[in-house]
Amino acid sequence: MSEGPVYSVRPVAYVRAGRCEPVDDRWDGVPARIELADGLDADALTGLDAFSHVEVLFLFHLVEEAEIELAARHPRGRADWPRIGIFAQRGKGRPNRLGATIARILKVEGRTLHVSGLDAVDGTPVLDLKPVMSGFLPRGEIDEPRWAKEIMADYW
Amino acid sequence: MSEGPVYSVRPVAYVRAGRCEPVDDRWDGVPARIELADGLDADALTGLDAFSHVEVLFLFHLVEEAEIELAARHPRGRADWPRIGIFAQRGKGRPNRLGATIARILKVEGRTLHVSGLDAVDGTPVLDLKPVMSGFLPRGEIDEPRWAKEIMADYW
Repeated sequence: MSEGPVYSVRPVAYVRAGRCEPVDDRWDGVPARIELADGLDADALTGLDAFSHVEVLFLFHLVEEAEIELAARHPRGRADWPRIGIFAQRGKGRPNRLGATIARILKVEGRTLHVSGLDAVDGTPVLDLKPVMSGFLPRGEIDEPRWAKEIMADYW
Repeated sequence: MSEGPVYSVRPVAYVRAGRCEPVDDRWDGVPARIELADGLDADALTGLDAFSHVEVLFLFHLVEEAEIELAARHPRGRADWPRIGIFAQRGKGRPNRLGATIARILKVEGRTLHVSGLDAVDGTPVLDLKPVMSGFLPRGEIDEPRWAKEIMADYW
């Protein structure tokens, strides 16, 4: 990949969840906790309970270097879906291994955030948490190809 | 902050935009290009033009260590808004300095992605690009506090 600059990031929290292995579907029934990392105080979560949803930026830490696609592939390896660029899909084997998922906030309890609908396994390092503001959602109509709807059919 | 593990990330692209200094409002009128970094081929963007929106994960690279808030503060320093945790706001002075914005795709041209509504200055390192799929948008009703609506009033 790029020979450019390297930036360091550190986990701000970790996912504690019931699911220990990455599988592709039925994530909504999996409850999860997000626990702040050492050195971060409950204060950092103040006011998050006034929002219904949180965007969780995390690292797909189980993905090995060899699994990272730099060009294009069939989503989930399915030849009946088109071969598309890694930046036109959301699969985990991607440069920098970053995930971004909007989860529902159940409650904030000290340094722990309880959520549902987070597609990350137990132990996942969290790099950032952002409140979902309606003003940051897509403006205008949303278009997407047919495969993108099909791939999400059983996801949650 | 955390004394835990450190992960390395590298820019997959850079923002080329008309705005060179971070200001807080009126981003929608600023056209921007996202140019893939060396070592990444146009193939990585294949099929992205079938989506209307892209989520851009980027680094607020101009933010200095001393500007990073680890606990809570008033958004934009405004005392008339409540003091809230850094993970309950989207300001740039945050741990890991990560930004996440959904922009509208104008066109894909080789290794360049043309977008509108990207609140990142010229030269910003991009860490990931993800297509916006309706299945990944918030499920259920969205709640947010009053200040979160007020702060977005003139943003785009």
